[in-house]
Amino acid sequence: MRTAVELIAAKRDGKRLADEEIRWLIGEFAEDRLPAYQMSALAMAIFYNGLDDRETRTWTDAMLRSGRVLDLAHLGSGRVDKHSTGGVGDKISLPLAPAAAACGVLVPMVAGRGLGHTGGTIDKLEAIPGYRASLDVDTFAGIVREHGFCIMGQTEDIAPADKRLYALRDVTGTVESIPLITASIMSKKLAEGIEGLILDVKVGPGAFMKTRERARELAERMVAVGGEMGKRVIAFLTRMDAPLGRMVGNACEVAESIDVLRGGGPADVVELVEVLGGAMVEVAKGVSFDEGRARIRAALNDGSALARFRGSIAAQGGDLDALPTPTGETVVTAPRDGHVAMIDGHEVGLTAMSLGAGRRRREDVIDPVVGVRVDAMVGAEVAAGAPLATILHGAGGPPPAEAIARLRAAFTLSDTETPVAPLIIERIG
Amino acid sequence: MRTAVELIAAKRDGKRLADEEIRWLIGEFAEDRLPAYQMSALAMAIFYNGLDDRETRTWTDAMLRSGRVLDLAHLGSGRVDKHSTGGVGDKISLPLAPAAAACGVLVPMVAGRGLGHTGGTIDKLEAIPGYRASLDVDTFAGIVREHGFCIMGQTEDIAPADKRLYALRDVTGTVESIPLITASIMSKKLAEGIEGLILDVKVGPGAFMKTRERARELAERMVAVGGEMGKRVIAFLTRMDAPLGRMVGNACEVAESIDVLRGGGPADVVELVEVLGGAMVEVAKGVSFDEGRARIRAALNDGSALARFRGSIAAQGGDLDALPTPTGETVVTAPRDGHVAMIDGHEVGLTAMSLGAGRRRREDVIDPVVGVRVDAMVGAEVAAGAPLATILHGAGGPPPAEAIARLRAAFTLSDTETPVAPLIIERIG
Repeated sequence: MRTAVELIAAKRDGKRLADEEIRWLIGEFAEDRLPAYQMSALAMAIFYNGLDDRETRTWTDAMLRSGRVLDLAHLGSGRVDKHSTGGVGDKISLPLAPAAAACGVLVPMVAGRGLGHTGGTIDKLEAIPGYRASLDVDTFAGIVREHGFCIMGQTEDIAPADKRLYALRDVTGTVESIPLITASIMSKKLAEGIEGLILDVKVGPGAFMKTRERARELAERMVAVGGEMGKRVIAFLTRMDAPLGRMVGNACEVAESIDVLRGGGPADVVELVEVLGGAMVEVAKGVSFDEGRARIRAALNDGSALARFRGSIAAQGGDLDALPTPTGETVVTAPRDGHVAMIDGHEVGLTAMSLGAGRRRREDVIDPVVGVRVDAMVGAEVAAGAPLATILHGAGGPPPAEAIARLRAAFTLSDTETPVAPLIIERIG
Repeated sequence: MRTAVELIAAKRDGKRLADEEIRWLIGEFAEDRLPAYQMSALAMAIFYNGLDDRETRTWTDAMLRSGRVLDLAHLGSGRVDKHSTGGVGDKISLPLAPAAAACGVLVPMVAGRGLGHTGGTIDKLEAIPGYRASLDVDTFAGIVREHGFCIMGQTEDIAPADKRLYALRDVTGTVESIPLITASIMSKKLAEGIEGLILDVKVGPGAFMKTRERARELAERMVAVGGEMGKRVIAFLTRMDAPLGRMVGNACEVAESIDVLRGGGPADVVELVEVLGGAMVEVAKGVSFDEGRARIRAALNDGSALARFRGSIAAQGGDLDALPTPTGETVVTAPRDGHVAMIDGHEVGLTAMSLGAGRRRREDVIDPVVGVRVDAMVGAEVAAGAPLATILHGAGGPPPAEAIARLRAAFTLSDTETPVAPLIIERIG
């Protein structure tokens, strides 16, 4: 077999790597026998020359097999999860997983923590007093069996090669590679022992994928690689040019999720839950997407999704009735009359983070009640002095003036009415 | 200033790096504060997107300043050196430096050791009993002042950032980058305190630059970057589709060099010494190239170049009269009648290395008398059974059969006469 430097040079020159070469590279890297400086040079070569579907499949599979792969076949079929490329205010997993579970889907969801301007599903759930994110596999499987879904935090032994590679890509300018992103997401998700995966690929200036073309490229690649690995993958490109829903934070996003599970909540969150959930039911139960969507809507309206949520969260020790509330509020007002044309989600996310709702560095501690509530969503007409958003105070009390100014600046007001673009752009797969 | 990962991403996306950013990167890397995995990712991005003349100049200057820069201004003006991209049998420095010195050029030459199929100038000189390659700077400068030239081995403190970067590029598939090659060569050579540099860029299937286009690109870049740094650089593209001269080894190449210094020797070696030396005289003395070349030819013919060689080598402890000779010879014969159309220098070099004339690994010890003498040069007509080449034995005695077969296979015989292409392809600068 070729040496590491020959493999780097081959990929540099646009050649294919053989299956056993990829498995060897990932294996050596995971075991710390392939130096990081070789892997980072290879990642940069892949940034330019890519990996084809076969190479991506093998790369994914090698990372997947670098750690523990859950075998949940004993739970029966219909195991489907969802993954989102991440957005500000994206609490979708919280109402989605129980709604899908209420429709008979089994959802073994392993979720992450947030860093930077986007929050993490586990951070949101940890705002619930008593909730334990860290479970052993038997407990996790038992909760999925009993309540239809369970959301737990990532463990050290799931796809450790991906963890190592992601940390390296993060500091070497090699994050933005479609095949490496695909392999990273798929290796972690397929380690959950699922049969199908629904993807929410965000598109927009503040999203990881800035253009529809790049987002489609990623979605198509994930659908193709999933297919190569015998998994049904459906991807939706969804618009992200404002925070999702009204709430950005942790406890407040849990509260908003409960609103949705009670049949209420913001229209964009409800629509996304219905669409992604409809596809989950389609894949798990073999019904049409429209039928799946109708079942999700019913589960949100009849209380069955909320019951699933209460049950699973309680099984993880969480007491929803003890959800903490803000220590105060500061209203951020419109500087003039106008229509809300755009809300810069990235800036809203960074403002919330700066107040304690998120982490700048991995070791930062989150204040669960800090958050931002968007009062005037895109399309709304506001008068000068009317509320644009409200800052929810935490232990630190009222926000500094810079945070207020920054949040105000995140809103673009226009003199004319702005048409609201549809949330769902396209379905792939 | 931007962070390391931002600089990698900028170069990845084809953007320019600012002077202070390049100086910071090289400085941090030299001091082991910039991790190798970031530098290798950056080197791969440079492989694809290059560095412009300004960036290359700054990169070169930063590597140059990472270590000691000799100040030889006190020796007076006319300090010019030569660099070759390396070839099999390339002993040119040995007759060239004293010939140029005999014409009044000051040649402070810092040379390297060989690895793989090409030998190193220092390895060749070390075949001379008593010769010391390792000198302190004052001794080096004193020998240049007295004898007009001195060839010493590389020291740890010349361009240490280049040494570190070259070792990293070697294991990360990032050697073949024109701007990084330029910066590597120029940073080491300009640390010698020279005013001008003559470059011999080899072109051919066995050379570092395989095509005339790539060789010209490198030559033009070196001329441009030298100019940006206030140095006169002239480059020659020269053909390398056979070993240079008849001898490949160490003691035998010294002996062949002495032949040239006596006004004899193979025509190709003599021509290259005249051309490169002519350009050195042109740069150092401000005469025309033709006048410079005529002076070099005279110095080879009138014994003044040989006297310089004897003087400088003796000053380094070397006893030319004690040059060791082979312990025996094995003739490699032509398998059939024919004309020598091509001699694969790479294969000849690897055969000589395998017998002990060179190093496979850095720690290997060289046998100074082992070597290969080419008996039938390109263009020669041979009869079946006539000598193609002769293996010169060392302490290990006669060569194994594989070495004989390999050396025979390095000769391509054709039924028709092959025109010999000119050695000098083009002058740049």
